[in-house]
Amino acid sequence: MTEYSIGVDLGGTNLRAAVVDQDGNLLDQVNVATSPDKGRDYVIGEIVDSIQKLRAKQSEGRFAGVGIGVPGFILIDKGIIVGSNNLAFLEGFALRDDIERRLGAPVILENDANSAALGESWIGAGQDVDDLVLLTLGTGIGGGIIYGNRVMHGREGMAGELGHITVVPNGNPCGCGNVGCLEKHASATAISCLADLMRVTPHPNPSAEEIFKLAAAGDWKAQQIFRSMGEALGVALAMLINTFNFPLFLLSGGPLPAWDYFAPAMIDEVKRRSFTYRNTKTRIEKAKLGNQAGLFGAAYLPFQAQNYRA
Amino acid sequence: MTEYSIGVDLGGTNLRAAVVDQDGNLLDQVNVATSPDKGRDYVIGEIVDSIQKLRAKQSEGRFAGVGIGVPGFILIDKGIIVGSNNLAFLEGFALRDDIERRLGAPVILENDANSAALGESWIGAGQDVDDLVLLTLGTGIGGGIIYGNRVMHGREGMAGELGHITVVPNGNPCGCGNVGCLEKHASATAISCLADLMRVTPHPNPSAEEIFKLAAAGDWKAQQIFRSMGEALGVALAMLINTFNFPLFLLSGGPLPAWDYFAPAMIDEVKRRSFTYRNTKTRIEKAKLGNQAGLFGAAYLPFQAQNYRA
Repeated sequence: MTEYSIGVDLGGTNLRAAVVDQDGNLLDQVNVATSPDKGRDYVIGEIVDSIQKLRAKQSEGRFAGVGIGVPGFILIDKGIIVGSNNLAFLEGFALRDDIERRLGAPVILENDANSAALGESWIGAGQDVDDLVLLTLGTGIGGGIIYGNRVMHGREGMAGELGHITVVPNGNPCGCGNVGCLEKHASATAISCLADLMRVTPHPNPSAEEIFKLAAAGDWKAQQIFRSMGEALGVALAMLINTFNFPLFLLSGGPLPAWDYFAPAMIDEVKRRSFTYRNTKTRIEKAKLGNQAGLFGAAYLPFQAQNYRA
Repeated sequence: MTEYSIGVDLGGTNLRAAVVDQDGNLLDQVNVATSPDKGRDYVIGEIVDSIQKLRAKQSEGRFAGVGIGVPGFILIDKGIIVGSNNLAFLEGFALRDDIERRLGAPVILENDANSAALGESWIGAGQDVDDLVLLTLGTGIGGGIIYGNRVMHGREGMAGELGHITVVPNGNPCGCGNVGCLEKHASATAISCLADLMRVTPHPNPSAEEIFKLAAAGDWKAQQIFRSMGEALGVALAMLINTFNFPLFLLSGGPLPAWDYFAPAMIDEVKRRSFTYRNTKTRIEKAKLGNQAGLFGAAYLPFQAQNYRA
């Protein structure tokens, strides 16, 4: 091994950190519960501590730096998080520079969905292509666009906010101010809500997994929910395919096991709405790295540092 | 002058060709009616002849080559046009290589909307930015995406087919197989059809310009048509802004004089549907080069030849 980095996936109440070499081999990993109630300074101390412990165990190889994937928008050039509901205590704070100072090592911040897309591009389902789009289906829907093996950021680092594409012009209202956002019709949360609306289970707020099991057992209401979700994804994917003509579009997240229940409606919708899809070899596939994608992507960031520093 | 190129804008029944230097100065231009009824070989002869005459008049400067903007898809690496309704006689033919052979000079083919976007990026409304999206409103709606001052092509050169983004999931049917495509709700043709539907004029099939004049004279039906068009554009633009977070989105084409009648509804829709727009300095503006944009973009292609040749 000649070079390694440390990737961090920072959530609202826990963090995962991993040592990865430049070939994408996972050398070490820790998962740590954080204490956001103890305040910003304490949590940053926990992050830095985790990284230093991992680094201390590495006896060989050059240390390339740290990449951190976080939910929310990143002002890339400033290394500041804005608009993160899960990390409100880090809002507007110069997180990157603070961690760099404490560590004495270069740090790069990136949006978590962008990190996941980069991870899939590096050593996951997108290894064989240079350009891809990833949709992460979870509480919301995140998006990451990889072009020429690099994250597409846009002017303020807000590119790839694909969960807020309008798929139903007069659809379900969204906290972003819009109605009919993709994530209000196709996220794991949306599946739960549709199940409530249709009274699929006797108890309120069933999980997407419960609905999947019911669909697999033949429940037609549960099957209709995944069909509706597939149609919403299809509208968004057709638009993205017409826009990018990329070779690969990936989906990841909790609802993936229900692929057989949502994918047929999704593909039907894409076929109907995209002649680019019908006339090219565009692939729509499952991502491969599961919830490790963001961790690997974050670890890859220091190896691509020239894209993040002037 | 140290270097010049020749840009060609090839339509169904005419071509325009211009000599442009590397600073974007227009040195000479011809507009020629072509004779598609006389067959492919004859028309290509007309194209080559126009280029050679322009070139013969240039006594100084290095000749960088020829760029040709054409309607339809271009297989970029092969230099072949596919799916062009207006140039059926060139379908599937190795046009680039044939013109190169006859001219003895390098030739680059590009989609006409991509050429127009590149022209605006080079010396038009997008001179001050590196990334922009252009929508060309005409018979249909074309799109061009410029990223890092270069045309974004996608795998088969079909990126930027933005006229076929779904803006009304159960909207007007489109020849592409979809329903509710942007161009079926916001092109000049769509304006005419909506005017027919609403019986705005006593005669059938009024032009977009007639409808604009009626709107300006206070006709509420005509004003409603532009409002509907603006809403459709707003849905598409919000999606593009959420996807790209680019600094600039441009509109061009015949309906631009009606800006004051469609833009308010368009901007309202964008504001509602894009928190990226509300939180950034994204500009939505008129393109500046009119129908010369494609000609300038085509002329710029030889100066960017490294993007088109392996």
